[in-house]
Amino acid sequence: MGRLFDKSLSDILQEAASSAPTPGGGSVSGIAAAFAASMAAMVGNLTIGKKKYRDVEEQVTALRDKALGLMAAFETLVEEDISQFGKFMEAYRLPKSTEEEKQHREGVLQQALKGATETPLKVARACVELLELVCELAPIGNTMAISDAGVAAYLAEAALYAVLLNVDINVPMIKERGFAVQAIEEKEGLMEQARSLREKAVAIVSERMS
Amino acid sequence: MGRLFDKSLSDILQEAASSAPTPGGGSVSGIAAAFAASMAAMVGNLTIGKKKYRDVEEQVTALRDKALGLMAAFETLVEEDISQFGKFMEAYRLPKSTEEEKQHREGVLQQALKGATETPLKVARACVELLELVCELAPIGNTMAISDAGVAAYLAEAALYAVLLNVDINVPMIKERGFAVQAIEEKEGLMEQARSLREKAVAIVSERMS
Repeated sequence: MGRLFDKSLSDILQEAASSAPTPGGGSVSGIAAAFAASMAAMVGNLTIGKKKYRDVEEQVTALRDKALGLMAAFETLVEEDISQFGKFMEAYRLPKSTEEEKQHREGVLQQALKGATETPLKVARACVELLELVCELAPIGNTMAISDAGVAAYLAEAALYAVLLNVDINVPMIKERGFAVQAIEEKEGLMEQARSLREKAVAIVSERMS
Repeated sequence: MGRLFDKSLSDILQEAASSAPTPGGGSVSGIAAAFAASMAAMVGNLTIGKKKYRDVEEQVTALRDKALGLMAAFETLVEEDISQFGKFMEAYRLPKSTEEEKQHREGVLQQALKGATETPLKVARACVELLELVCELAPIGNTMAISDAGVAAYLAEAALYAVLLNVDINVPMIKERGFAVQAIEEKEGLMEQARSLREKAVAIVSERMS
Protein backbone atom coordinates (compact mmCIF):
# COMPACT_ATOMS: atom_id res chain seq x y z
CA MET A 1 0.00 0.00 0.00
CA GLY A 2 2.83 2.44 0.81
CA ARG A 3 2.84 5.56 2.88
CA LEU A 4 -0.03 7.99 2.37
CA PHE A 5 2.32 11.01 2.48
CA ASP A 6 4.24 9.72 -0.55
CA LYS A 7 1.14 10.03 -2.72
CA SER A 8 0.31 13.22 -4.58
CA LEU A 9 -1.95 15.73 -2.85
CA SER A 10 -4.37 15.35 -5.73
CA ASP A 11 -4.61 11.56 -5.29
CA ILE A 12 -5.00 11.85 -1.52
CA LEU A 13 -7.89 14.28 -1.95
CA GLN A 14 -9.58 11.94 -4.45
CA GLU A 15 -9.21 9.01 -2.04
CA ALA A 16 -10.47 11.08 0.88
CA ALA A 17 -13.52 12.16 -1.13
CA SER A 18 -14.31 8.60 -2.25
CA SER A 19 -16.33 6.05 -0.30
CA ALA A 20 -13.10 4.23 0.66
CA PRO A 21 -12.93 4.14 4.47
CA THR A 22 -9.42 5.65 4.63
CA PRO A 23 -8.22 8.34 4.72
CA GLY A 24 -11.18 9.40 6.87
CA GLY A 25 -11.80 12.29 9.22
CA GLY A 26 -9.04 11.32 11.66
CA SER A 27 -6.38 11.21 8.95
CA VAL A 28 -7.58 14.41 7.30
CA SER A 29 -7.46 16.18 10.68
CA GLY A 30 -3.90 14.93 11.17
CA ILE A 31 -2.93 16.25 7.73
CA ALA A 32 -4.40 19.68 8.60
CA ALA A 33 -2.38 19.60 11.82
CA ALA A 34 0.78 18.78 9.84
CA PHE A 35 0.13 21.84 7.65
CA ALA A 36 -0.35 23.94 10.78
CA ALA A 37 3.05 22.73 12.01
CA SER A 38 4.59 23.54 8.62
CA MET A 39 3.44 27.16 8.95
CA ALA A 40 5.02 27.48 12.41
CA ALA A 41 8.26 26.05 11.00
CA MET A 42 8.11 28.50 8.07
CA VAL A 43 7.74 31.49 10.39
CA GLY A 44 10.80 30.16 12.24
CA ASN A 45 12.77 29.71 9.01
CA LEU A 46 11.90 33.24 7.88
CA THR A 47 13.19 34.62 11.21
CA ILE A 48 16.42 32.63 11.56
CA GLY A 49 19.45 34.32 9.95
CA LYS A 50 17.86 37.78 9.85
CA LYS A 51 19.97 40.53 11.48
CA LYS A 52 16.92 42.18 12.99
CA TYR A 53 16.04 38.97 14.86
CA ARG A 54 19.53 37.94 15.99
CA ASP A 55 18.59 38.32 19.67
CA VAL A 56 15.87 35.68 19.41
CA GLU A 57 17.62 33.39 16.92
CA GLU A 58 18.50 30.67 19.40
CA GLN A 59 14.97 30.57 20.82
CA VAL A 60 13.37 30.63 17.37
CA THR A 61 15.67 27.86 16.13
CA ALA A 62 14.54 25.64 19.01
CA LEU A 63 10.89 26.43 18.20
CA ARG A 64 11.45 25.77 14.48
CA ASP A 65 13.01 22.39 15.28
CA LYS A 66 10.14 21.52 17.58
CA ALA A 67 7.61 22.51 14.88
CA LEU A 68 9.37 20.22 12.39
CA GLY A 69 9.29 17.44 15.00
CA LEU A 70 5.54 17.92 15.43
CA MET A 71 5.05 17.93 11.67
CA ALA A 72 6.76 14.53 11.50
CA ALA A 73 4.75 13.31 14.51
CA PHE A 74 1.47 14.20 12.79
CA GLU A 75 2.57 12.23 9.75
CA THR A 76 3.27 9.17 11.92
CA LEU A 77 -0.09 9.59 13.67
CA VAL A 78 -1.96 9.73 10.37
CA GLU A 79 -0.37 6.41 9.34
CA GLU A 80 -1.32 5.08 12.82
CA ASP A 81 -4.91 6.26 12.32
CA ILE A 82 -5.09 4.36 9.04
CA SER A 83 -3.65 1.15 10.54
CA GLN A 84 -5.99 1.44 13.56
CA PHE A 85 -8.91 1.44 11.20
CA GLY A 86 -7.55 -1.70 9.54
CA LYS A 87 -7.29 -3.42 12.94
CA PHE A 88 -10.84 -2.48 13.77
CA MET A 89 -12.15 -3.90 10.49
CA GLU A 90 -10.15 -7.11 11.01
CA ALA A 91 -11.60 -7.51 14.48
CA TYR A 92 -15.08 -6.80 13.19
CA ARG A 93 -14.77 -9.59 10.60
CA LEU A 94 -13.65 -12.27 13.12
CA PRO A 95 -15.96 -15.32 13.31
CA LYS A 96 -18.68 -15.27 15.96
CA SER A 97 -20.38 -18.66 15.70
CA THR A 98 -19.35 -20.21 19.04
CA GLU A 99 -19.34 -18.61 22.50
CA GLU A 100 -15.55 -18.88 22.51
CA GLU A 101 -15.25 -17.07 19.17
CA LYS A 102 -17.66 -14.38 20.35
CA GLN A 103 -15.61 -13.73 23.47
CA HIS A 104 -12.35 -13.65 21.52
CA ARG A 105 -13.84 -11.28 18.92
CA GLU A 106 -15.22 -8.95 21.60
CA GLY A 107 -11.80 -8.78 23.31
CA VAL A 108 -10.02 -7.92 20.05
CA LEU A 109 -12.72 -5.37 19.15
CA GLN A 110 -12.39 -3.67 22.54
CA GLN A 111 -8.61 -3.41 22.05
CA ALA A 112 -9.11 -1.92 18.58
CA LEU A 113 -11.63 0.60 19.93
CA LYS A 114 -9.21 1.71 22.64
CA GLY A 115 -6.48 2.16 20.03
CA ALA A 116 -8.85 4.13 17.80
CA THR A 117 -9.59 6.40 20.78
CA GLU A 118 -5.96 6.78 21.87
CA THR A 119 -4.69 7.85 18.43
CA PRO A 120 -6.96 10.93 18.09
CA LEU A 121 -6.07 11.87 21.68
CA LYS A 122 -2.38 11.74 20.68
CA VAL A 123 -3.09 13.99 17.68
CA ALA A 124 -5.00 16.41 19.92
CA ARG A 125 -2.19 16.49 22.52
CA ALA A 126 0.29 17.31 19.75
CA CYS A 127 -2.07 20.09 18.52
CA VAL A 128 -1.99 21.63 22.00
CA GLU A 129 1.82 21.42 22.01
CA LEU A 130 1.83 23.13 18.64
CA LEU A 131 -0.50 25.88 19.88
CA GLU A 132 1.77 26.45 22.88
CA LEU A 133 4.71 26.70 20.50
CA VAL A 134 2.83 29.22 18.33
CA CYS A 135 2.11 31.32 21.43
CA GLU A 136 5.87 31.45 22.09
CA LEU A 137 6.76 32.12 18.47
CA ALA A 138 4.12 34.77 17.71
CA PRO A 139 5.65 37.52 19.89
CA ILE A 140 9.19 37.09 18.49
CA GLY A 141 8.92 35.73 14.93
CA ASN A 142 9.54 37.86 11.82
CA THR A 143 6.72 40.42 11.53
CA MET A 144 6.73 39.98 7.73
CA ALA A 145 5.56 36.37 8.14
CA ILE A 146 3.65 36.60 11.38
CA SER A 147 0.21 36.12 9.79
CA ASP A 148 1.31 32.55 9.08
CA ALA A 149 1.59 31.97 12.83
CA GLY A 150 -2.12 32.86 12.84
CA VAL A 151 -2.74 30.32 10.08
CA ALA A 152 -0.95 27.70 12.22
CA ALA A 153 -3.10 28.55 15.25
CA TYR A 154 -6.44 28.41 13.41
CA LEU A 155 -5.63 25.13 11.67
CA ALA A 156 -4.21 23.44 14.79
CA GLU A 157 -7.32 24.34 16.79
CA ALA A 158 -9.71 23.08 14.11
CA ALA A 159 -7.67 19.88 13.59
CA LEU A 160 -7.97 19.21 17.34
CA TYR A 161 -11.77 19.65 17.41
CA ALA A 162 -12.11 17.59 14.24
CA VAL A 163 -9.93 14.67 15.33
CA LEU A 164 -11.65 14.47 18.72
CA LEU A 165 -14.96 13.66 17.02
CA ASN A 166 -13.44 10.16 16.74
CA VAL A 167 -13.33 9.94 20.53
CA ASP A 168 -17.06 10.67 20.61
CA ILE A 169 -17.66 7.91 18.05
CA ASN A 170 -15.63 5.20 19.80
CA VAL A 171 -16.19 5.85 23.49
CA PRO A 172 -19.85 4.70 23.62
CA MET A 173 -18.72 1.26 22.37
CA ILE A 174 -15.94 0.87 24.97
CA LYS A 175 -16.93 -1.33 27.89
CA GLU A 176 -14.13 -0.41 30.29
CA ARG A 177 -15.90 2.46 32.04
CA GLY A 178 -12.73 3.99 33.55
CA PHE A 179 -11.04 4.25 30.14
CA ALA A 180 -14.13 5.81 28.58
CA VAL A 181 -14.62 8.41 31.32
CA GLN A 182 -10.95 9.37 31.26
CA ALA A 183 -10.96 9.75 27.47
CA ILE A 184 -13.97 12.09 27.57
CA GLU A 185 -12.47 14.15 30.39
CA GLU A 186 -9.16 14.49 28.59
CA LYS A 187 -10.98 15.42 25.38
CA GLU A 188 -12.86 18.23 27.09
CA GLY A 189 -9.70 19.57 28.74
CA LEU A 190 -7.82 19.56 25.43
CA MET A 191 -10.65 21.44 23.68
CA GLU A 192 -10.62 24.16 26.33
CA GLN A 193 -6.84 24.47 26.17
CA ALA A 194 -6.91 24.70 22.40
CA ARG A 195 -9.52 27.43 22.36
CA SER A 196 -7.70 29.58 24.86
CA LEU A 197 -4.27 29.07 23.25
CA ARG A 198 -5.64 29.91 19.77
CA GLU A 199 -7.27 33.07 21.11
CA LYS A 200 -3.98 34.07 22.72
CA ALA A 201 -1.95 33.34 19.56
CA VAL A 202 -4.34 35.19 17.24
CA ALA A 203 -4.44 38.21 19.58
CA ILE A 204 -0.63 38.45 19.48
CA VAL A 205 -0.58 38.02 15.70
CA SER A 206 -3.26 40.70 15.20
CA GLU A 207 -1.38 43.14 17.37
CA ARG A 208 1.88 42.55 15.53
CA MET A 209 0.18 42.90 12.13
CA SER A 210 -1.33 46.30 12.95
CA MET B 1 7.30 24.33 -12.05
CA GLY B 2 4.20 22.14 -12.46
CA ARG B 3 1.05 22.01 -10.40
CA LEU B 4 1.45 21.97 -6.62
CA PHE B 5 -1.25 19.30 -6.24
CA ASP B 6 0.76 16.85 -8.38
CA LYS B 7 3.55 16.83 -5.80
CA SER B 8 3.61 14.38 -2.91
CA LEU B 9 2.05 15.50 0.36
CA SER B 10 5.42 14.98 2.00
CA ASP B 11 7.20 17.31 -0.46
CA ILE B 12 4.49 19.97 -0.17
CA LEU B 13 4.82 19.97 3.62
CA GLN B 14 8.60 20.31 3.36
CA GLU B 15 8.24 23.25 0.95
CA ALA B 16 5.60 24.88 3.14
CA ALA B 17 7.86 24.55 6.19
CA SER B 18 10.89 25.99 4.37
CA SER B 19 11.73 29.66 3.98
CA ALA B 20 10.53 29.54 0.35
CA PRO B 21 7.75 32.10 -0.03
CA THR B 22 5.28 29.62 -1.54
CA PRO B 23 3.26 27.70 -0.56
CA GLY B 24 2.48 30.20 2.22
CA GLY B 25 -0.47 30.69 4.52
CA GLY B 26 -2.95 31.42 1.74
CA SER B 27 -2.13 28.22 -0.12
CA VAL B 28 -2.09 26.11 3.03
CA SER B 29 -5.51 27.48 3.98
CA GLY B 30 -6.80 26.58 0.51
CA ILE B 31 -5.44 23.04 0.91
CA ALA B 32 -7.20 22.70 4.28
CA ALA B 33 -10.41 23.89 2.61
CA ALA B 34 -9.96 21.27 -0.16
CA PHE B 35 -9.68 18.57 2.53
CA ALA B 36 -12.84 19.93 4.17
CA ALA B 37 -14.62 19.60 0.82
CA SER B 38 -13.28 16.04 0.43
CA MET B 39 -14.91 15.06 3.72
CA ALA B 40 -18.28 16.46 2.63
CA ALA B 41 -17.96 14.51 -0.62
CA MET B 42 -17.06 11.34 1.32
CA VAL B 43 -20.14 11.63 3.52
CA GLY B 44 -22.15 11.97 0.30
CA ASN B 45 -20.47 8.94 -1.28
CA LEU B 46 -21.12 6.85 1.84
CA THR B 47 -24.81 7.78 1.68
CA ILE B 48 -25.48 7.31 -2.04
CA GLY B 49 -26.53 3.77 -2.99
CA LYS B 50 -27.60 2.79 0.55
CA LYS B 51 -31.15 1.44 0.83
CA LYS B 52 -31.74 3.25 4.11
CA TYR B 53 -31.03 6.60 2.44
CA ARG B 54 -32.85 6.07 -0.85
CA ASP B 55 -35.30 8.90 -0.09
CA VAL B 56 -32.51 11.48 0.07
CA GLU B 57 -30.30 9.98 -2.65
CA GLU B 58 -31.06 12.61 -5.27
CA GLN B 59 -30.46 15.48 -2.87
CA VAL B 60 -27.27 13.90 -1.49
CA THR B 61 -25.96 13.23 -5.00
CA ALA B 62 -26.37 16.92 -5.86
CA LEU B 63 -24.56 17.89 -2.62
CA ARG B 64 -21.77 15.38 -3.29
CA ASP B 65 -21.27 16.79 -6.80
CA LYS B 66 -21.20 20.32 -5.42
CA ALA B 67 -18.63 19.29 -2.78
CA LEU B 68 -16.42 17.80 -5.52
CA GLY B 69 -16.81 21.04 -7.49
CA LEU B 70 -15.70 23.07 -4.47
CA MET B 71 -12.74 20.72 -3.91
CA ALA B 72 -11.62 21.42 -7.49
CA ALA B 73 -12.26 25.15 -7.02
CA PHE B 74 -10.00 25.25 -3.94
CA GLU B 75 -7.26 23.56 -5.96
CA THR B 76 -7.55 26.22 -8.67
CA LEU B 77 -7.53 28.98 -6.05
CA VAL B 78 -4.37 27.61 -4.42
CA GLU B 79 -2.60 27.74 -7.80
CA GLU B 80 -3.99 31.28 -8.21
CA ASP B 81 -2.65 32.24 -4.77
CA ILE B 82 0.81 31.04 -5.79
CA SER B 83 0.74 32.91 -9.10
CA GLN B 84 -0.54 36.07 -7.37
CA PHE B 85 2.48 35.99 -5.13
CA GLY B 86 4.72 35.70 -8.19
CA LYS B 87 3.04 38.75 -9.74
CA PHE B 88 3.52 40.72 -6.56
CA MET B 89 7.24 39.87 -6.41
CA GLU B 90 7.65 40.78 -10.12
CA ALA B 91 5.99 44.13 -9.51
CA TYR B 92 8.11 44.72 -6.44
CA ARG B 93 11.31 44.18 -8.45
CA LEU B 94 10.37 46.64 -11.23
CA PRO B 95 12.85 49.52 -11.69
CA LYS B 96 12.12 52.74 -9.83
CA SER B 97 14.85 55.17 -10.94
CA THR B 98 12.77 57.69 -12.91
CA GLU B 99 9.44 59.25 -11.97
CA GLU B 100 7.87 57.40 -14.89
CA GLU B 101 9.22 54.05 -13.68
CA LYS B 102 8.03 54.76 -10.14
CA GLN B 103 4.52 55.50 -11.35
CA HIS B 104 4.42 52.41 -13.54
CA ARG B 105 5.73 50.23 -10.70
CA GLU B 106 3.20 51.62 -8.25
CA GLY B 107 0.33 50.93 -10.69
CA VAL B 108 1.45 47.32 -11.20
CA LEU B 109 1.97 46.84 -7.44
CA GLN B 110 -1.51 48.14 -6.69
CA GLN B 111 -2.98 45.70 -9.23
CA ALA B 112 -1.04 42.83 -7.66
CA LEU B 113 -2.20 43.82 -4.17
CA LYS B 114 -5.81 43.85 -5.29
CA GLY B 115 -5.37 40.41 -6.82
CA ALA B 116 -3.73 39.13 -3.63
CA THR B 117 -6.76 40.43 -1.70
CA GLU B 118 -9.36 39.11 -4.13
CA THR B 119 -8.00 35.52 -4.14
CA PRO B 120 -8.36 34.94 -0.36
CA LEU B 121 -11.83 36.46 -0.53
CA LYS B 122 -12.70 33.92 -3.25
CA VAL B 123 -11.38 31.09 -1.04
CA ALA B 124 -13.43 32.41 1.90
CA ARG B 125 -16.60 32.70 -0.21
CA ALA B 126 -16.14 29.09 -1.29
CA CYS B 127 -15.66 28.08 2.38
CA VAL B 128 -19.02 29.66 3.21
CA GLU B 129 -20.61 27.78 0.29
CA LEU B 130 -19.09 24.58 1.64
CA LEU B 131 -20.37 25.29 5.16
CA GLU B 132 -23.87 25.88 3.75
CA LEU B 133 -23.58 22.58 1.92
CA VAL B 134 -22.48 20.80 5.13
CA CYS B 135 -25.52 22.25 6.93
CA GLU B 136 -27.75 20.68 4.26
CA LEU B 137 -25.86 17.37 4.26
CA ALA B 138 -25.52 16.92 8.03
CA PRO B 139 -29.24 16.22 8.72
CA ILE B 140 -29.59 13.64 5.92
CA GLY B 141 -26.17 12.01 5.37
CA ASN B 142 -25.32 8.46 6.53
CA THR B 143 -25.19 8.47 10.35
CA MET B 144 -22.21 6.07 10.24
CA ALA B 145 -20.09 8.77 8.58
CA ILE B 146 -21.71 11.89 9.96
CA SER B 147 -18.77 12.84 12.20
CA ASP B 148 -16.86 13.56 8.97
CA ALA B 149 -19.40 16.29 8.19
CA GLY B 150 -18.21 17.80 11.49
CA VAL B 151 -14.59 17.50 10.33
CA ALA B 152 -15.58 19.33 7.12
CA ALA B 153 -17.26 22.12 9.11
CA TYR B 154 -14.37 22.68 11.52
CA LEU B 155 -11.74 22.70 8.77
CA ALA B 156 -13.74 24.95 6.42
CA GLU B 157 -14.28 27.51 9.19
CA ALA B 158 -10.60 27.55 10.19
CA ALA B 159 -9.47 27.73 6.54
CA LEU B 160 -11.68 30.80 6.12
CA TYR B 161 -10.26 32.61 9.16
CA ALA B 162 -6.74 31.66 8.14
CA VAL B 163 -6.97 32.73 4.51
CA LEU B 164 -8.57 36.07 5.44
CA LEU B 165 -5.42 37.02 7.36
CA ASN B 166 -4.07 37.79 3.87
CA VAL B 167 -6.74 40.44 3.45
CA ASP B 168 -5.51 42.10 6.66
CA ILE B 169 -1.95 42.04 5.31
CA ASN B 170 -2.71 43.54 1.90
CA VAL B 171 -5.46 46.04 2.56
CA PRO B 172 -3.32 48.62 4.41
CA MET B 173 -1.12 48.91 1.28
CA ILE B 174 -4.04 49.41 -1.13
CA LYS B 175 -4.57 53.05 -2.06
CA GLU B 176 -8.04 52.75 -3.58
CA ARG B 177 -10.01 53.46 -0.43
CA GLY B 178 -13.33 52.06 -1.72
CA PHE B 179 -11.76 48.71 -2.58
CA ALA B 180 -10.05 48.47 0.81
CA VAL B 181 -13.18 49.31 2.82
CA GLN B 182 -15.28 46.87 0.82
CA ALA B 183 -12.74 44.06 1.28
CA ILE B 184 -12.69 44.53 5.06
CA GLU B 185 -16.48 44.67 5.25
CA GLU B 186 -16.82 41.53 3.17
CA LYS B 187 -14.18 39.80 5.30
CA GLU B 188 -16.05 40.54 8.50
CA GLY B 189 -19.36 39.36 7.05
CA LEU B 190 -17.80 36.11 5.84
CA MET B 191 -16.25 35.44 9.27
CA GLU B 192 -19.61 35.88 11.00
CA GLN B 193 -21.36 33.65 8.47
CA ALA B 194 -18.69 30.96 8.87
CA ARG B 195 -18.93 30.93 12.64
CA SER B 196 -22.69 30.63 12.68
CA LEU B 197 -22.79 27.97 9.92
CA ARG B 198 -20.09 25.89 11.65
CA GLU B 199 -22.00 26.07 14.95
CA LYS B 200 -25.16 24.96 13.16
CA ALA B 201 -23.40 22.08 11.36
CA VAL B 202 -21.61 20.81 14.48
CA ALA B 203 -24.85 20.95 16.50
CA ILE B 204 -26.62 18.78 13.92
CA VAL B 205 -23.67 16.37 13.78
CA SER B 206 -23.50 16.07 17.58
CA GLU B 207 -27.21 15.36 17.80
CA ARG B 208 -27.03 12.67 15.11
CA MET B 209 -23.98 11.07 16.77
CA SER B 210 -25.67 10.71 20.15
